[in-house]
Amino acid sequence: MMTPTSLDPMRAWIDTHRPQWIEDYFKFLRFPSISFESKYKADMQECVDWLTQLLTNMHFEVEQWPTAGQPVLFAQNLQAGPTKPTLLIYNHYDVQPVEPLEEWLSPPFQPTLCDGKVYARGAQDNKGQCFYVLQSLKMLQELTGRLPLNIKLCIEGEEEMGSIHLPQILPSHQDQLKADYLAVVDTGLHDAQIPALTLGMRGIITMDVEVQGSFTDLHSGTHGGIVPNPIHALVSLLASLRDDQGRVTIPGFYDDVTEISEAERQLISLHFDAKKYQNQIGAEPVGGEQAYAELERAWTRPTLEINGIHGGHTGNGFKTVIPAKAHAKISCRLVPHQEPEKIAALVVNHLKKHAPAGVKVNVHVHSGNGRAIRVNPQSTVVKGFAQAFEEVFAKPCEFILSGGSVPVIAKLSEVCQGDTLLLGLGLDSDQIHAPNEHFGLDRLEKGILIMARAMQILADHASHEAS
Amino acid sequence: MMTPTSLDPMRAWIDTHRPQWIEDYFKFLRFPSISFESKYKADMQECVDWLTQLLTNMHFEVEQWPTAGQPVLFAQNLQAGPTKPTLLIYNHYDVQPVEPLEEWLSPPFQPTLCDGKVYARGAQDNKGQCFYVLQSLKMLQELTGRLPLNIKLCIEGEEEMGSIHLPQILPSHQDQLKADYLAVVDTGLHDAQIPALTLGMRGIITMDVEVQGSFTDLHSGTHGGIVPNPIHALVSLLASLRDDQGRVTIPGFYDDVTEISEAERQLISLHFDAKKYQNQIGAEPVGGEQAYAELERAWTRPTLEINGIHGGHTGNGFKTVIPAKAHAKISCRLVPHQEPEKIAALVVNHLKKHAPAGVKVNVHVHSGNGRAIRVNPQSTVVKGFAQAFEEVFAKPCEFILSGGSVPVIAKLSEVCQGDTLLLGLGLDSDQIHAPNEHFGLDRLEKGILIMARAMQILADHASHEAS
Repeated sequence: MMTPTSLDPMRAWIDTHRPQWIEDYFKFLRFPSISFESKYKADMQECVDWLTQLLTNMHFEVEQWPTAGQPVLFAQNLQAGPTKPTLLIYNHYDVQPVEPLEEWLSPPFQPTLCDGKVYARGAQDNKGQCFYVLQSLKMLQELTGRLPLNIKLCIEGEEEMGSIHLPQILPSHQDQLKADYLAVVDTGLHDAQIPALTLGMRGIITMDVEVQGSFTDLHSGTHGGIVPNPIHALVSLLASLRDDQGRVTIPGFYDDVTEISEAERQLISLHFDAKKYQNQIGAEPVGGEQAYAELERAWTRPTLEINGIHGGHTGNGFKTVIPAKAHAKISCRLVPHQEPEKIAALVVNHLKKHAPAGVKVNVHVHSGNGRAIRVNPQSTVVKGFAQAFEEVFAKPCEFILSGGSVPVIAKLSEVCQGDTLLLGLGLDSDQIHAPNEHFGLDRLEKGILIMARAMQILADHASHEAS
Repeated sequence: MMTPTSLDPMRAWIDTHRPQWIEDYFKFLRFPSISFESKYKADMQECVDWLTQLLTNMHFEVEQWPTAGQPVLFAQNLQAGPTKPTLLIYNHYDVQPVEPLEEWLSPPFQPTLCDGKVYARGAQDNKGQCFYVLQSLKMLQELTGRLPLNIKLCIEGEEEMGSIHLPQILPSHQDQLKADYLAVVDTGLHDAQIPALTLGMRGIITMDVEVQGSFTDLHSGTHGGIVPNPIHALVSLLASLRDDQGRVTIPGFYDDVTEISEAERQLISLHFDAKKYQNQIGAEPVGGEQAYAELERAWTRPTLEINGIHGGHTGNGFKTVIPAKAHAKISCRLVPHQEPEKIAALVVNHLKKHAPAGVKVNVHVHSGNGRAIRVNPQSTVVKGFAQAFEEVFAKPCEFILSGGSVPVIAKLSEVCQGDTLLLGLGLDSDQIHAPNEHFGLDRLEKGILIMARAMQILADHASHEAS
């Protein structure tokens, strides 16, 4: 099945055009497209306008779908014709906030190339992964004059805030989003040297918890020992959410969780190198449910994590205050069969029911939750992409799961009606959502090749079936 | 013992000069003299220079004692002569930070008079209390041409950061600080209508706790369930510091604590109105050790309070991060016989010993700790001030304790060698250390009267003893 000859002209094209595509990639990265923060609204629009121009130049019909939040870019090129299948590709152009800014070694929106890696917010998640998709299309057009498949692109602007508005507009674009295959290009590899496709992602719910004691902050000398301290209340409430084996203690939390099937266990690669992980991450992999192996915990088990906490004096020095309020942010990663709304209700009820004496507990569940998804490993699109991965890496393609979540995918997949595929070239070490996010140019180039080859393979497959 | 006639000319003076002293008080409050934050260094100096000028105009010899931090103002007027006793008065000109700024109804350094109360950072703690001391001296000079006692003033600039540098310079100023009586004017009343003197304050230790997991912040999808989350580690560590009855669980914490004596219990007013407290504060008085009554908890029992906590994403929206670090600030209020260093070591050891798996716990104990202090209720200075309180309030003076701490007092008291007295006109509702700190002008005026009358009474007492 190896067809190295078809990769050679692509590799040559990538070499020849490297200065140009690096320049375009950096342009894309320079837009501070942080969807969370309203002050970047104009930058978000400039970013999506830039993409619109780029795709228009590539003979795509481009639409910007307005939402109550950031616009969604939709583009299509159907020149392959009705005999060829249609591939819908999902990416997003928004990025995470950049705090703590002081920990960045180079400014997050000034892409910096160092040792073959590009450092910038979004370098990987998801502008890097979006960019190799776009370059693969450009390359195919330049090398062959046309695209082998009908291509639709849905590039979202609110993935990092839970895709809160895209589901609202999906029904009115049902026809446009219909496709034979849906490729979500927002996941990763387990090892930089091993080709891998992702067979599933976890779902997610997120919420803010607020514990209120007194009306205002109070002096800890005068009131210490009398007034309930909301920080104490919060830490005891949060500490009670997991037992000493890392198991979530909320009744019903695991009710709908099914253990990983033997077939799945056979198919996916669960190898984990604890020593390597510790060297790279700086901490032993001892978080989560101790009854399961590391990758089972990350891929097949639900979690409850505190993602933020604050209350009282948090600056330098010391302020002897008992604050009026304390806050936490909690997320749960969900596995198949767990309903986001049901789990959110369990967590909220538990938190309210166990509110310590003297404080009020308020919980706000964010919109933008989503179910876990599982991909069919026997589908044409999975097989086609697996072949492309094998050719580019010159190694057999493995199958993995992802612990991450793209909450909107379950909904998009329903509207698309095609077989869904999760792929990407991210690595755990890319520091996405953290300071010094980066992406290797080697993987970006592999991404261009894989996307292009997969489209050719899927087009050939359609021809053979038709003939 | 009531001598209302001696108060009449003082009340008249206060009325006549009200515009002038309010202007001076507001000037004092406008200096943003936050000792914590180095950016206010110049403002601190302007504030102490302003005090220097004010006291020089009042015929005091003024010195600014440099320290490794903020200067200490020392001033003396010994014109009463060797037959009269010397009173050393302690105040501080530094104030707490002002965050959260958005909760102030008027800017913290633009004093605002509303309904007879002055709103500003420091309005009470301690510029308000310092100011009535200064005005009482000015008034006595203007009404009688001289001060009845020899007066020494020690006005510190780092009380709000635990007086970290003053103890270092005390030995070199031992002679200057010697006095018959030491009056620490930094405490409060239990009820605005009831005159009260403070027979003791709690000691204090403060520390910063840092829990570190991974090298950098990580994505909670990729790493959730594998990596130890330092926020979970921190909340479980902190939650373990108190049991469900509010008792501190650290072994040895209560070892040196003696229960309040029956004599003390008879002398001090332990009446507490829980309903009134809740209406005023917004929370039931259910914090602290449930085995003790409210004021016993606040005045006679040690505490461990979390005064600040932060980690992960704390802004708007949601960031699915597992942070590298989480932080907390802890203080303990101490009672007589508890040694600050010993208690600090117990807390630090306990925190380190119980560090959850996979994280490192670092604790930094701040300097500026201090022992609890107790005042002798039979001393001349206590009796003299009690009489002044009774005259001004026209009610019997009660005795209370304070849950607060002025860590340097134990050390200053040793150097002074005189009988120590704790007094003040603060109220629990003044919101010191919190947004919208305020002080009633009625109490400020009472403060002028009490200080002036107490000096006269102590001077008369000395004359009677001599005669």
